[in-house]
Amino acid sequence: MNLLALRPIAEKLFADVRELTFDGVGVTRASYGRGESATADYLRAFAQTEGLDVRSDKAANLLFSGAGHNAEGPVAWTGSHIDSVPQGGNFDGLAGVVAGLLCLLARQREAVPSKLPMEVIAFRGEESAWFGKAYVGSSALFGKLAATDLDLRQRDSGDSLATCMAAAGADLAALRAGEPLFDKARVKAFLELHIEQGPVMVARELPLAVVSGIRGNIRHNRVVCRGDAQHSGVVPRWLRHDAMFAVADLIMRIDEHWRLLLERGTDLVVTTGIVQTAAAEHSISRIPGEVSFSLEARSKSCDTLEAFYQLIRAECASISRERGVQFEFDRRLLSEPATMDAGICSVLSKACAGLGVPFETLPSGAGHDASLFANAGIPSGMLFVRNQHGSHNPREAMALDDFMLGVQAMSDALEQLG
Amino acid sequence: MNLLALRPIAEKLFADVRELTFDGVGVTRASYGRGESATADYLRAFAQTEGLDVRSDKAANLLFSGAGHNAEGPVAWTGSHIDSVPQGGNFDGLAGVVAGLLCLLARQREAVPSKLPMEVIAFRGEESAWFGKAYVGSSALFGKLAATDLDLRQRDSGDSLATCMAAAGADLAALRAGEPLFDKARVKAFLELHIEQGPVMVARELPLAVVSGIRGNIRHNRVVCRGDAQHSGVVPRWLRHDAMFAVADLIMRIDEHWRLLLERGTDLVVTTGIVQTAAAEHSISRIPGEVSFSLEARSKSCDTLEAFYQLIRAECASISRERGVQFEFDRRLLSEPATMDAGICSVLSKACAGLGVPFETLPSGAGHDASLFANAGIPSGMLFVRNQHGSHNPREAMALDDFMLGVQAMSDALEQLG
Repeated sequence: MNLLALRPIAEKLFADVRELTFDGVGVTRASYGRGESATADYLRAFAQTEGLDVRSDKAANLLFSGAGHNAEGPVAWTGSHIDSVPQGGNFDGLAGVVAGLLCLLARQREAVPSKLPMEVIAFRGEESAWFGKAYVGSSALFGKLAATDLDLRQRDSGDSLATCMAAAGADLAALRAGEPLFDKARVKAFLELHIEQGPVMVARELPLAVVSGIRGNIRHNRVVCRGDAQHSGVVPRWLRHDAMFAVADLIMRIDEHWRLLLERGTDLVVTTGIVQTAAAEHSISRIPGEVSFSLEARSKSCDTLEAFYQLIRAECASISRERGVQFEFDRRLLSEPATMDAGICSVLSKACAGLGVPFETLPSGAGHDASLFANAGIPSGMLFVRNQHGSHNPREAMALDDFMLGVQAMSDALEQLG
Repeated sequence: MNLLALRPIAEKLFADVRELTFDGVGVTRASYGRGESATADYLRAFAQTEGLDVRSDKAANLLFSGAGHNAEGPVAWTGSHIDSVPQGGNFDGLAGVVAGLLCLLARQREAVPSKLPMEVIAFRGEESAWFGKAYVGSSALFGKLAATDLDLRQRDSGDSLATCMAAAGADLAALRAGEPLFDKARVKAFLELHIEQGPVMVARELPLAVVSGIRGNIRHNRVVCRGDAQHSGVVPRWLRHDAMFAVADLIMRIDEHWRLLLERGTDLVVTTGIVQTAAAEHSISRIPGEVSFSLEARSKSCDTLEAFYQLIRAECASISRERGVQFEFDRRLLSEPATMDAGICSVLSKACAGLGVPFETLPSGAGHDASLFANAGIPSGMLFVRNQHGSHNPREAMALDDFMLGVQAMSDALEQLG
């Protein structure tokens, strides 16, 4: 099947969803919130107009299939997520859902019998920006959403995840039961198309890449460093317990360990994405008594993550002693690294090669819903499409030509499965 | 003169004024407001009962003197302020006024002729908490209250400073004229006793300290560090422009310079009271692209402030090059340091030494009415009394034993002037 004729549909879907969720700067599609639900409603209406079947699972993820499709037989799943970070880009997540829909539409229109039927899944709640937890929709799918997860608070409204999921139509009782929401044995493969979020493919002039594996991460959403808030003019250095100087000290020690580990060939990135002196009491002329910050380390290796984490805790203990401050950690969150299935990688590579475009096999630094499928033993694969300016910002830029190459490769790969 | 017999009077004055202005948590004596006026009325009545003369100036500051005192001859002034911050402590300001009154009472009772007569001044409106401006009463005294200052609004009632000053009995026309409210040539010295607002004297076990000067400061309310916001998982360390790591780097370089300067005996404190990743775009999984922070350095030396400031700017330039970020500075604000008079410091030191108590010479990190006298060319000095738990909070705690030592030293110093 040649999917090039579907290019105007892709163009329209991207434009419409962007318009629907534009916030003045980028797009905002809050996990289990307004922009994400608007996107879901739009895609459901579009699919129904095209004669596709649309179901929701008990976590309010959407499942698209061809008319008359056997909802209980073996199947290949493809898809991605429909939420975004605040003021994010239009393609992160959405591209994989649109790609899946185009593949499904092509099958529906050409009515060619395939070895393995397909369904397209649109996940909710993939971005951690909103509740401090990633993969909410896909975790729920696997029965892996903990009761404590449901108590997490939305960054702006303060509403609990349970409240927001219920409002989006999720079945909380089913989620609390912790049972998988689907029959794992049915799903023979999971394929996800996603924009590359780093600078490698642009630099190497690769429109497509096959993903070899996904970095895992260790996170704390909120660490609080407590010192002693005092008048800035009257406390000399040796009597200060400055929470901000302590956090700066920690960040610089982390930076130094990181640099040394990289020199030894370790795979690692570290980020303190949110750092804040306490707004209720901070002022220019007051020594900060409380600073809160987020902490995230990512690596392909579980051992690296654990060792680096212990190093950070040891530095916190050392800084506490030296500067007279305390560090308080919230719950540690762990996402395990995932390896993509060699067989699926090979099918995806052949599909790319068949298009005659340059491609390479690359690791993914960002996390993806596909990692949950891979770690649950479902053969999984990912296809990256070239994208400029990274992601999680309004400047992300994927050329539609590159995207249509990706859609074609994905469709060809899906035809080879079964 | 030995003033120990006056200890019960000090006890009663502190207890009565505390009761008069207790708010359930601490004391509240609003600048040109209820608690401050209640304190003024109480002290006037007390002084009149004791046979002292009491006058008000055109800014409603109170002036106490002995009966039959020559109100036009040369004089030494001592005093402090009678307002407090909301829910503040009882001794910040009041201690200096009570100390002055005890010295005056002792002279009156013993009728010993002194080389230089004294008057006690009780300033209003020293705390910036109420109108966002400090030293209102003493600024008015020097004819330095601007028309725009009179338009400032009270934080709770919203009433203008002009309205509140008029209600307390001030002469607005005189204030608007901008003329000094007293004859500067008359006042040969200004002495102020005040509780220490920092932890140094408690830590060093010093009941008294002679203040060498009042620190000035250089401030930026808001410096912005701009890097490149990107997905936290996909950008390797060498390609990152992490604004938070850059600011942490700056803070640690500042800390290191500060430490080295202190080892060389430099007077300096540095504070970054407000630090914030940009709330509109930050998230756990995003490399911070924008961090804003405040910057304040205080020193008794203008040269130190300027040199340290240039050092900070040089480090910003260096970090910009190394980390690929930019620093943007708002308007630089400068408050000049005030130096206490060497002769008066020496008289105060001798008075402390004469009492046989340990004392040291310390800079004042916080601002005081005395700085206006010093910068107007009037020889000025300050005596600090040990105080626990800092100030501007109900937990401030000055022992009456320490206070009476301070009163004795102040009285002895006043006798030496002339």
